[in-house]
Amino acid sequence: MRHSLVASIFALLSVGAGAAHAEGALRDQAKGLFEPIPKTAPAFPNNPATPEKLALGKMLYFETRLSEHRDMACATCHNLSMSGVDTIASSQLAGRDVQTVLNAVFNKSLYWDGRAADLQDQVVNSVMANPKAVLKTRGGPMAINPVELAATKQHEIDQLKTVPAYVEAFKTAFPGEADPLVYNNIGKAIAVFEATLITPDSAFDRWLTGDDAALDDTQKAGLELFINKGCAACHNGVNIGGASYAKFGVVANPGPEYLPPEDAGRYAVTKNNADRYVFKVASLRNVEMTPPYFHTGSTFDLRKAVAVMAEAQLGAKLSDDETTKIVAFLKTLTGKQPDIVLPVLPPRDR
Amino acid sequence: MRHSLVASIFALLSVGAGAAHAEGALRDQAKGLFEPIPKTAPAFPNNPATPEKLALGKMLYFETRLSEHRDMACATCHNLSMSGVDTIASSQLAGRDVQTVLNAVFNKSLYWDGRAADLQDQVVNSVMANPKAVLKTRGGPMAINPVELAATKQHEIDQLKTVPAYVEAFKTAFPGEADPLVYNNIGKAIAVFEATLITPDSAFDRWLTGDDAALDDTQKAGLELFINKGCAACHNGVNIGGASYAKFGVVANPGPEYLPPEDAGRYAVTKNNADRYVFKVASLRNVEMTPPYFHTGSTFDLRKAVAVMAEAQLGAKLSDDETTKIVAFLKTLTGKQPDIVLPVLPPRDR
Repeated sequence: MRHSLVASIFALLSVGAGAAHAEGALRDQAKGLFEPIPKTAPAFPNNPATPEKLALGKMLYFETRLSEHRDMACATCHNLSMSGVDTIASSQLAGRDVQTVLNAVFNKSLYWDGRAADLQDQVVNSVMANPKAVLKTRGGPMAINPVELAATKQHEIDQLKTVPAYVEAFKTAFPGEADPLVYNNIGKAIAVFEATLITPDSAFDRWLTGDDAALDDTQKAGLELFINKGCAACHNGVNIGGASYAKFGVVANPGPEYLPPEDAGRYAVTKNNADRYVFKVASLRNVEMTPPYFHTGSTFDLRKAVAVMAEAQLGAKLSDDETTKIVAFLKTLTGKQPDIVLPVLPPRDR
Repeated sequence: MRHSLVASIFALLSVGAGAAHAEGALRDQAKGLFEPIPKTAPAFPNNPATPEKLALGKMLYFETRLSEHRDMACATCHNLSMSGVDTIASSQLAGRDVQTVLNAVFNKSLYWDGRAADLQDQVVNSVMANPKAVLKTRGGPMAINPVELAATKQHEIDQLKTVPAYVEAFKTAFPGEADPLVYNNIGKAIAVFEATLITPDSAFDRWLTGDDAALDDTQKAGLELFINKGCAACHNGVNIGGASYAKFGVVANPGPEYLPPEDAGRYAVTKNNADRYVFKVASLRNVEMTPPYFHTGSTFDLRKAVAVMAEAQLGAKLSDDETTKIVAFLKTLTGKQPDIVLPVLPPRDR
């Protein structure tokens, strides 16, 4: 009796030690693949974030007067009430699903086809200078005429110059410049604000940095599956994605609702045949908050999205139980959403 | 010498006493015409503002999934970064200039033609049920078919029901109701939030309640002109307007850019010939923040707007100096803009 009790206690301790050992091994493996979101905004060496520039960048992010018809701002599609996306399948500007601005500063490049190098480049060169940009209005598509783009940019500058408070704000944000209200500075200011839009303190990051209790067993099992099934081969790094490109349909093409033949992805940027149907690997940070999924925005169902990816990219048919666990893990990637106090935008006076 | 010094001091004291008397008389006159914006949100007797309802109302105010195409929220046109308006001359929904939601709770009725009785009525019955509503898209006008409106409302309810957190939020905001996620409760919740969108503590209100130094001499002279020229005959009360209707063009019709013949104003609501070209008197609270002006949004220039009103309504041609003073007074009506922390809107899961 006494012997069996001692044996039982010993057995229990072994299981505990084994679990602790397994947890440690999983964390070591995870640390080799992933990094937590930093607690503070990263800095740009050539674009320091002064309080004045940050305040201006926030105003411009919400500024509809940066659009030709004064009805769209960055915040329209990259809605900060909705984890930096809209709830619509295809962007009005690009014809692809909107990718979130949250943590975008950590991505290798921007857009599904990677055509913008960084946040500033995205604002200055891509939104306004993409000759393929099409405004999908309710009345049908309306192509932006590339010949008019320079005029459009000038028109926006002219609109801002009718607002005395902006003329002043650009002077204080870019001191010493003779003509600070220029497009490049709009990009710099917005980039500095967007770099603050990060979501630290997710349950996964807390676990990764040592808090065993931050994930439950189902979520840990989901993480193991995420690594061992091969998802983490592409979805890794600080953004659990966002750091590389991959062909969509490595093993098997998904249906045309997910991969329509007319959108060849990164090929449009590089004209390299190897880039046909290659897209930037999406970040999975806050993925439960950012439906719909895929560059087509074809589903709002995260289980479905996981199943499609497993089949197309890994040739794996997941069981219901495996999908449940992976989705449980993905939901631990939701971080603290940024607190955004709306800026007050100054009126024009003529 | 001594006599003349005494006389001078006496004269100065008399002027001081005279100025104080004049200030007191002006304030008495103003108190008979105007009221300050209260410091706290007014309450609705049949729609108490619980924290849960307020939080839900704020979410719904920013919720694009309340629109058919999931791309417009209350906040789109009543932009809380822009004093509750957009910066566009004509609303996309109504074809008239957007009126601010700030302090709208104190208006007698809503819309330029007064077709909504209050905030809740505006949400529930007018936005969705106005058979004249026309969506002015970039591709041209798109009439909303009144026959489809009930379906549209149901469609919105269905959209919200795909979001589990909303199903829960309506239960806690409207406890004890068997089916709380209904259109009427959307209106109640949004009305409760909108009632908090008030702008107390303007310089004018501080002066009105006793702070002599809150207005300078030019602004006080502007207030006197505003009263004595007759502006305050209509623009009075807590909202300096918003409490009555008036024909636009009492003395002389303004040009068709300000009063296009095809928009007969309140006549469309009452079918009473006396209401042709009658419009709700606009509130002048925060007027410097809410260009463009008039139901047509025909000018961004507040001086021009004042001059047009004086000629059309009072038959008065103001001097440059008089306009400067009146505009200086109008700018004292800008109150403390509400601090809005963006809500985080929950994702749908299917």
